[in-house]
Amino acid sequence: MPVNLPSIENQILPPVKGVRLGWAEANIKKPNHKDLLVIEVAYGSSVSGVFTQNRFCAAPVHICKKHLDEAKQIKALVINTGNANAGTGEQGMQDAMSTCEQLASQLDVPVNAILPFSTGVILEHLPMGRLLAGLAPAVNRLTEDAWEPAAWSIMTTDVAPKAYATTCQLAEHSIQVTGISKGAGMIHPNMATMLGFIATDAAISQPLLNDITKQIADLSFNCISVDGDTSTNDSFIIIASGKAGNPEITDSEDPLLKTIFQSLLETAQYLAKAIVRDGEGATKFITVNVLDALSNEEAKAVGYAIAKSPLVKTAMFASDPNLGRVLAAIGYASRECESLQDLNVDNIELYFGDVLVAEKGGRAHSYTEEAGQKIMQDAEIEITVKLNRGNDNATIWSCDFSYDYVRINAEYRT
Amino acid sequence: MPVNLPSIENQILPPVKGVRLGWAEANIKKPNHKDLLVIEVAYGSSVSGVFTQNRFCAAPVHICKKHLDEAKQIKALVINTGNANAGTGEQGMQDAMSTCEQLASQLDVPVNAILPFSTGVILEHLPMGRLLAGLAPAVNRLTEDAWEPAAWSIMTTDVAPKAYATTCQLAEHSIQVTGISKGAGMIHPNMATMLGFIATDAAISQPLLNDITKQIADLSFNCISVDGDTSTNDSFIIIASGKAGNPEITDSEDPLLKTIFQSLLETAQYLAKAIVRDGEGATKFITVNVLDALSNEEAKAVGYAIAKSPLVKTAMFASDPNLGRVLAAIGYASRECESLQDLNVDNIELYFGDVLVAEKGGRAHSYTEEAGQKIMQDAEIEITVKLNRGNDNATIWSCDFSYDYVRINAEYRT
Repeated sequence: MPVNLPSIENQILPPVKGVRLGWAEANIKKPNHKDLLVIEVAYGSSVSGVFTQNRFCAAPVHICKKHLDEAKQIKALVINTGNANAGTGEQGMQDAMSTCEQLASQLDVPVNAILPFSTGVILEHLPMGRLLAGLAPAVNRLTEDAWEPAAWSIMTTDVAPKAYATTCQLAEHSIQVTGISKGAGMIHPNMATMLGFIATDAAISQPLLNDITKQIADLSFNCISVDGDTSTNDSFIIIASGKAGNPEITDSEDPLLKTIFQSLLETAQYLAKAIVRDGEGATKFITVNVLDALSNEEAKAVGYAIAKSPLVKTAMFASDPNLGRVLAAIGYASRECESLQDLNVDNIELYFGDVLVAEKGGRAHSYTEEAGQKIMQDAEIEITVKLNRGNDNATIWSCDFSYDYVRINAEYRT
Repeated sequence: MPVNLPSIENQILPPVKGVRLGWAEANIKKPNHKDLLVIEVAYGSSVSGVFTQNRFCAAPVHICKKHLDEAKQIKALVINTGNANAGTGEQGMQDAMSTCEQLASQLDVPVNAILPFSTGVILEHLPMGRLLAGLAPAVNRLTEDAWEPAAWSIMTTDVAPKAYATTCQLAEHSIQVTGISKGAGMIHPNMATMLGFIATDAAISQPLLNDITKQIADLSFNCISVDGDTSTNDSFIIIASGKAGNPEITDSEDPLLKTIFQSLLETAQYLAKAIVRDGEGATKFITVNVLDALSNEEAKAVGYAIAKSPLVKTAMFASDPNLGRVLAAIGYASRECESLQDLNVDNIELYFGDVLVAEKGGRAHSYTEEAGQKIMQDAEIEITVKLNRGNDNATIWSCDFSYDYVRINAEYRT
C-alpha cells in the first residue's frame, strides 16, 4: 500500500472553471476499466508543458511539443493508459496523429489544438480501433466535476489514484487549483513514466505560464526518484483557464504571481510526492535534504546519489540505520558532479531525523544504534546532509527497495 | 549460486616465484574462518595499484596511496575481511597504521613498505587486538603455494572464492600470472567493495607497471556493475616480482609488453567478471556491448545506463525480453554524457544475442517474442547496441536484480 497517501475518497476535488473532463473504458489493455481521458480547455486558456529528456521519447511527446509550439490555442488533451506508444517508430507517430485528428474533428477544432499523452507498456502499437471508439463516449461525458474519475483513468501500475486541490486569493478573486498525476515505476527526473496535469482558473499569460511551469517542475516532479529510470513519456502540464476573472498576470514581478505560484507548487509537490508514496513496492517515504552545498547542482547530485542507491534503499526497507551506505553514496556523488571532487568528507554532518549520526569522517560520538533504530521504524524517514561548504540546498523525495519492487517489475508483462 | 563460475577446486593456481601468501583466522567478525591474509613480495618487485574514487575512501586506501608514493620498495600487503575500516575517522587511520607497524616489525622492513587493505562492514572500528594477534600466524604460514586459501580469506558476502591463473612466454622465459579477487555487492567502477590482487614473476619496470595497471583496471574492474554503488575500499594491485628471469621490460614499445599485458588483462577480466557472476542474488550474467559510438565515454555511458537500470535488471531476472526498458535506458544515457544529447534513436540497432530486436526507433519487423524469449532463458545474456555514429566501443558486464538481492542487502547486518 502507498506510504501515508490520503485516500482519494476523503479528498474534495473542486472543479476548475473552464476545464471539463470526460473518461471512457476503451479496453486498451484490459476491459472494464477507465483508460481514456479527454480534458477540454476553454478558449483563451494558457497551456504549458514540460517533457521527458529521454532521447527515446514517445510519439505523443514529439507531437505535444510540436503542437504547443505552433498552435495559437490548445483546446483539448487526450490521455490513454495501458500503452505508451513509445519505441513504435513511424507507425507510432501516425497513431498519435490519428488520435488528435479524430478528437479535433469531434470538437471541431484544428488538429494542432490537441495534445496527446500515452502511458503504459512500451513498444506495442496502440489498438487504434478501440482507442478511437472510446473518444466519443469520453467527449459525451465532458463535465467540470470529474477530477476523481480522471485520476482513476490515467493509472498504470499505480496502486492508488493521485489528486490534490487547493485555493488562493488574487486580490478579490478566489482561485481554484486542482490537479492529478500518475506514476509508480520508472520514476526519475526529466521525469518518469509520470503524467501530471494541473489546472487553475487564474488568468496567467502564456509566456509567464511557460516560465513557471518549468520552475515548478524543477521543484516537484524533478525532485523525485523511485528507481532512477527516466521514462519515455513523462509529461507535466499546467492549464490556466482565466475563468476566475482576475486581470491576466503578465508581469513576472507582479506580487500576485507569487501567490498563485505557491498554490501551483503546493499542488505539484503533493502530486510528485504521491508518486513516490505509491512507488512500486514502497514501504518507506524518504526525504533527503542536502544543505550548504556550493551549488544547487551539487546538492541535487548528493541527494540523488543517496536516493538512487540500491544499497541505501534496501537498508531502508530493512529499517536498518546503515549510515555507512549513506556515507558511501555521498562519497561517490562526485561521479555526477565535478565540483564535488574536492569535497572534504571530514566537514560533513549527517542526520537521520534530528539525530546526528556522522561527523568528522566517521560515526558521531553521541550516536547510538538505538537512536538510529528508532528513527528507522517510522514509515517517513528524513535524511539530512550538511555539506558545510556553501549556501545552496536541495530536497529529493524517494522510497525504499523491497521484495515487492522486484516482484512488480519482474511480473509486469505476465 | 554464482552464474557459470567454475569451482575453485577445479582450478590449478600455480605459485608465482617471489610472492608468498599466509592466512590466519583472526576472528575479526566471526570465528573459525580465514579472514586475514599477508602477501609477501620479494625484494626488487614492482608493485602498482588503482584505488576507489569515492570521496569517503577508507583509511587503508589513504595509506596505500601514501606508501606507494613514498616507499622505495613494497615488501608486503596485509588484507583483512569482516571490517572495512571506512568512515572511521582519525582512529581508523591510526588502526591501519598500527597494522602496518606490527607487520613491518615482524618482517623487519620499513613501515611504508606495507600496504594495508580492509573489506567488510563500514563505520565500525577494527578489533585491533584480534587483528594484530592474527599477524604472527599469517606470517608463519607464508608460502608460495597458497593462492586457494588466499582467495577464501578475502571473501565477504561472496558465495564463492575467485581466482585465475595463466601463463605466457616472454622469449625463452615462461611467465606465470596468478590472481584473486573478492566482491559481490556495492560493485561499480572506480571500483566497488572489491579487491583484486594479481601477481606475475615477469620483470616489468615500476613506471611501466603503473601505466598498465591503470589500463588493465579500465578494461576489467572498471567495466562491471552489480548495483551501481561505488565502495569506499576498492583496490586493485599488480605485483611483478621479476623472478622469472626475463630482462626487465622498461619500454612501452617492447613487443614483449603486449604479451604479458594480454595475460594480465585476461586474468583481470576473468576476476572482474567473476565478481559479477557472484553478484548479490545474481541469476543471469549480462554482457552489454556498445558499438560505433562517438567516443569510449559515450559507449560506456550507454552501457552503464543499461547495466544499472533496475527495470532492465528485474526484467532479466524474469527472463523477460523487455526491449522497451533497454531502449528507455539508452535514451536517458544522455544524462551522463553530453555528446549523447544529439543521439538519433532512429539509427540505433539493438540485438539480444544475435537477434535484431529493434531498429528505426521501434521493434524490428523480423523480431518475434518467441525469439526474444529463447535468448532470455539462458543464464548468459548478451545485449548489443549499435549506435552507428562513430568508431568507439565498450563492453560492460552486469547481472540481474532478484529477490535475493533485496534479501541479502536487507539482512546484511542482522
